[in-house]
Amino acid sequence: MTGVEFKMERYLHDCRSSIDDALDRYLKKTGDRSSLLHQAICYSVLDGGKRFRPTLTLAVGQLFGAKRRALLPFACAIELIHCYSLIHDDLPAMDNDDLRRGKPSCHKRFGEAIALLAGDALLTEAFFIMSDPSAARSLSGPLISKLVREVSEAAGIRGMIGGQTTELELDGRKVTPAVLENLDRLKTGALITTAARVGAMIGGAGNKDLDRVTRYAQALGLAFQITDDILDSHEVTSDNGKGIVNYLSVMEPARARERVQGLLNDCLREMRPYGSAAEALRELARFVALRTDDGAGEERNSLAPASGFDGPQRLEGVPHRRHP
Amino acid sequence: MTGVEFKMERYLHDCRSSIDDALDRYLKKTGDRSSLLHQAICYSVLDGGKRFRPTLTLAVGQLFGAKRRALLPFACAIELIHCYSLIHDDLPAMDNDDLRRGKPSCHKRFGEAIALLAGDALLTEAFFIMSDPSAARSLSGPLISKLVREVSEAAGIRGMIGGQTTELELDGRKVTPAVLENLDRLKTGALITTAARVGAMIGGAGNKDLDRVTRYAQALGLAFQITDDILDSHEVTSDNGKGIVNYLSVMEPARARERVQGLLNDCLREMRPYGSAAEALRELARFVALRTDDGAGEERNSLAPASGFDGPQRLEGVPHRRHP
Repeated sequence: MTGVEFKMERYLHDCRSSIDDALDRYLKKTGDRSSLLHQAICYSVLDGGKRFRPTLTLAVGQLFGAKRRALLPFACAIELIHCYSLIHDDLPAMDNDDLRRGKPSCHKRFGEAIALLAGDALLTEAFFIMSDPSAARSLSGPLISKLVREVSEAAGIRGMIGGQTTELELDGRKVTPAVLENLDRLKTGALITTAARVGAMIGGAGNKDLDRVTRYAQALGLAFQITDDILDSHEVTSDNGKGIVNYLSVMEPARARERVQGLLNDCLREMRPYGSAAEALRELARFVALRTDDGAGEERNSLAPASGFDGPQRLEGVPHRRHP
Repeated sequence: MTGVEFKMERYLHDCRSSIDDALDRYLKKTGDRSSLLHQAICYSVLDGGKRFRPTLTLAVGQLFGAKRRALLPFACAIELIHCYSLIHDDLPAMDNDDLRRGKPSCHKRFGEAIALLAGDALLTEAFFIMSDPSAARSLSGPLISKLVREVSEAAGIRGMIGGQTTELELDGRKVTPAVLENLDRLKTGALITTAARVGAMIGGAGNKDLDRVTRYAQALGLAFQITDDILDSHEVTSDNGKGIVNYLSVMEPARARERVQGLLNDCLREMRPYGSAAEALRELARFVALRTDDGAGEERNSLAPASGFDGPQRLEGVPHRRHP
């Protein structure tokens, strides 16, 4: 391990500790142990997860001089939104996944009704945390309003939910790499990009810097997804025998690796103006693009076919890939 | 029809038109007709509903001199949250209702996956609308942040979702009127109360006025729920033969009517200091408490037993009453 790698390892560990502590503090306020909903929320948030999105918020924010204290509510809110999306994605009506992060998924453990409500509660709690009066003390009111707008846009129909719907509507059809990239820009890319942008906005970055950070994070999110598919290459058909729509089903492995290298170069290029101050973000990009282990393993979606579309307009689910 | 009744009728109609127009404008921005998610959202929001909550926001806001233009984004956001809660409530994992407002419920028409995502999208969209830059122009940034806090508190684990969970956990047990009232204060009361409070906050009401409005709306919400149960008195057992937990299963009809009258008196007393300026809110309370028709019919939950709790901690659903 080189010195830089060691420093990076320590930095990521430090970020993760801050985030886990903050999540723990926030979730303590959602009820007591006797409440099944509170248990389901803690079960789904506090045990596992690499905290990739909130780490990105902290690292970008710190590049622009933001205090970690000001960043944490928004970093945690984005993580709660990520966690809610996993709970709802795992439901029988969606991916019907029994496992999440190596343990029973929320609905397997607590039942579908509680899992549904736990997801709803986490999404709502994200906005409750973002509008915490203590956040209002360290940030200006108009900025908080802008951040709420930013996050709700990325999480909603113009972002993550839009991508989830597009994926449902693909309905197992063959797609081109471009279609797949566009889908991922929404489904996973939008929230990752916003995680970075929120950090920059809290740090008071100007438009040019914000654009750079946006391009960096868009490339990073896509690199993460493609690398994930490469690491997952042994799983190219689902339980129902239908081909999984992922990068290895639309391009050769060598081409996919080239694409990741290109995206990593994009990330590094965008950070060039910041010199050594952006070392953490450069390392984060290398870490994401060059990892050879199954780094997102605990957040994967299983490859069970989606089921439960039994309305008149039944949609056959596309087997989903993990969320990076 | 008396002159006051006629004026009230016209006022409610006028509020409803403004709200429907605004909802239509907002939802147009969520996609095009080819998107199933957009269709599901419009299907669930734009066709039916009395707009009780947003009307309350407009009426309270206008009492304190707020412009309708400033009130509408928040009034609509609260209505979207109400609509999302109905979509998720109707899902097989919750109440398993096939009908909503006299037509197939969202999941019966579009499938469970799209219904789940439509609910998620509406909840997210509520915060997107509240943080619209045009709202930021007519209101101060700190106020918007306060309003986001207010609404997310009422909609989440400390309000509506908390109430839904408590109801699930009752599990068909016998309850006292006090337990039922406490449940309703969360499940339906919190969002109704917040609908009123948001109007007062936008109108710049001071703490004393805000407290009055809060007490008015708490009494109003409870009166609505009890009246609903009285109008629904022919349905005292559910399909699975289990008694429905409602006011008529915990008190005599005469006692329930007395309780409504008491709550109406509470509403009227809270509005006394405002004289004729509060006539609309007084009439709204009379309308809610004294109606003899099935005024909330199109928003009712059917009495089908809840189902779909098939996790290890299976909860048997309590047959739900309508949301007023």
